[in-house]
Amino acid sequence: MAKAITLKDVAREAGVHISTASRALNEETRSGLSAETADRVIATAERLGYQPHPLARGLRTNRTRSVGMVVPDLISPFIPPILAGAQHTLSEVGYSLLIGSDDESSPRTRPAVETFLERRVDGLIVANAHLEFTPPDAVQRREVPTVLVSRCVADGSFPAIVGDDQAALSLVVRHLVELGHTRIAHVAGPLDISTGLFRRDGFINALAEEGLAASDCRVFEAGSFHSEDGHAACSRLLDSGDGYTAIVAANDLLALGCIDAIQERGLSVPRDLSVTGYDDIALVDRLDPALTTISLPYEEMGVVAGRLLLDLLASDVETVETPHEPKRLAPTLFVRSSTGSVGST
Amino acid sequence: MAKAITLKDVAREAGVHISTASRALNEETRSGLSAETADRVIATAERLGYQPHPLARGLRTNRTRSVGMVVPDLISPFIPPILAGAQHTLSEVGYSLLIGSDDESSPRTRPAVETFLERRVDGLIVANAHLEFTPPDAVQRREVPTVLVSRCVADGSFPAIVGDDQAALSLVVRHLVELGHTRIAHVAGPLDISTGLFRRDGFINALAEEGLAASDCRVFEAGSFHSEDGHAACSRLLDSGDGYTAIVAANDLLALGCIDAIQERGLSVPRDLSVTGYDDIALVDRLDPALTTISLPYEEMGVVAGRLLLDLLASDVETVETPHEPKRLAPTLFVRSSTGSVGST
Repeated sequence: MAKAITLKDVAREAGVHISTASRALNEETRSGLSAETADRVIATAERLGYQPHPLARGLRTNRTRSVGMVVPDLISPFIPPILAGAQHTLSEVGYSLLIGSDDESSPRTRPAVETFLERRVDGLIVANAHLEFTPPDAVQRREVPTVLVSRCVADGSFPAIVGDDQAALSLVVRHLVELGHTRIAHVAGPLDISTGLFRRDGFINALAEEGLAASDCRVFEAGSFHSEDGHAACSRLLDSGDGYTAIVAANDLLALGCIDAIQERGLSVPRDLSVTGYDDIALVDRLDPALTTISLPYEEMGVVAGRLLLDLLASDVETVETPHEPKRLAPTLFVRSSTGSVGST
Repeated sequence: MAKAITLKDVAREAGVHISTASRALNEETRSGLSAETADRVIATAERLGYQPHPLARGLRTNRTRSVGMVVPDLISPFIPPILAGAQHTLSEVGYSLLIGSDDESSPRTRPAVETFLERRVDGLIVANAHLEFTPPDAVQRREVPTVLVSRCVADGSFPAIVGDDQAALSLVVRHLVELGHTRIAHVAGPLDISTGLFRRDGFINALAEEGLAASDCRVFEAGSFHSEDGHAACSRLLDSGDGYTAIVAANDLLALGCIDAIQERGLSVPRDLSVTGYDDIALVDRLDPALTTISLPYEEMGVVAGRLLLDLLASDVETVETPHEPKRLAPTLFVRSSTGSVGST
């Protein structure tokens, strides 16, 4: 993504706060500033070649300049960076972000969205869609532009910004194959959420890419993305007696639950089993063993979702044909000490 | 704090979403529901003895039912739980939460607040106040009720919900004294923020409580609350040659920076130096050494701040005399393996 000159750049260069820069560049609000400040900002914007987002110019007056964002849970480690990216992007053009949470309960997503509609938000960002997400009618009729982030829906009925799970699982499985592993199990997240399903499918596809026998590489589904359910799934995996030497977990918390279950049986990571995560949450690089995991650009995901929504708001028509293909952001594999060669000790 | 029956309890008991319960209990919105659902919710509310917050009843029509919350940075580990607590509390009575960030830059707090005022929020929650925070005039004149959370201001001009830093530092220093430490250094956070200042003062008071000589126990101020600045402060501390055996850091990230600096010199925690943190952020209990630290009830802090703001909005007058004494929530000390007896090996 090319780095465009943003209002933030103009503000920094002109030595003013972003909201001052915003006012200076808007004819309606400029009068509240000193002429000297306004002139400096305008000159800086011209010099840097700043192109305001269309919304920052001709704003229709029946808009509330607010966007509602529904998240599964504010405390999930990957949500705050998405929120931060979206908030910065929207505030740059004078949009405010309202937040709502459905506490990771699928039947509650819709009421959370309805609350935003009652507040007449101009658009919606939904970070907690289940695959079968059915939004309120106004959203279905595209009266309120909506962008999904982090998770997408099965029928592609909404544009979505997600991580590239297939690329991620290919990186992980290739890494394990290079270490000599052939019996690899997957601890999957809930399969009614795209991140659970796509990572499971990505795992199965990656096995084929690497020429591994699917019959040697079972999937154990966890009840949630939390560590206790990783522990439970890993216990079933170890009880199976199938002799796995590596576990690919669908997120970091599941991986930590797996490591707990392994260590409780007196086994060692990575000597007896290698374990990988997904998300690269804070401090997993400092654990012992440090977690080999996938990093997604979550803050960028929020930025891209915010920009896409602003584009939809500016175009004011549903120009894009459905089904939408999700925009997938590239993952990075961080190799750390939770993975090692088969029989490394 | 006694556990009151909340709208959430009513909704759960009646088997409906919280927004449905809210509508059922409001005469103006009840007609949108089936009579059966509305009756069930009303009966449940009566049976449980639910008392709606005054705001949920007589709402003045010139209100926007929105609250703006300014945070230093959405990615700081303690912010999401505060946000979650406030959001749940406000949404229970039909209030929406708008979020803004000043990127931990004190001159930007005021513009962030101004943006909310332009949007005519009914109230403000400020989680990033510097000690000398000077809000816009409308806030100074109390036209917009404002509650501070996590940090407070020097002159007590606003009600605030914070952690009890004095109690926390007393717990930490007593723990270290019980382990035999007498030469204890403090790696302080920025002293223009209440959490930096109060923890430093708490440390100094705790030394006196324990009868330690202040001359043996220096304070090293870090430039921020981030680990790199903890590393830098700890390097100065180690260079001092003063023979400290324990370090009390003003937050967990500073503590992790200290541990890095100690280990880089070939020294060991806790054998050569014990280190304590503050915040109990995710995964510090799984590190090696696991961090001895203070836990604050951050989610509760958000809940209490939200309730206090709703009280101010309901009373609609500035009944409380200034200066306000901050409400301080009690800390918990978690003793883990980063602290040990002097000369334990």
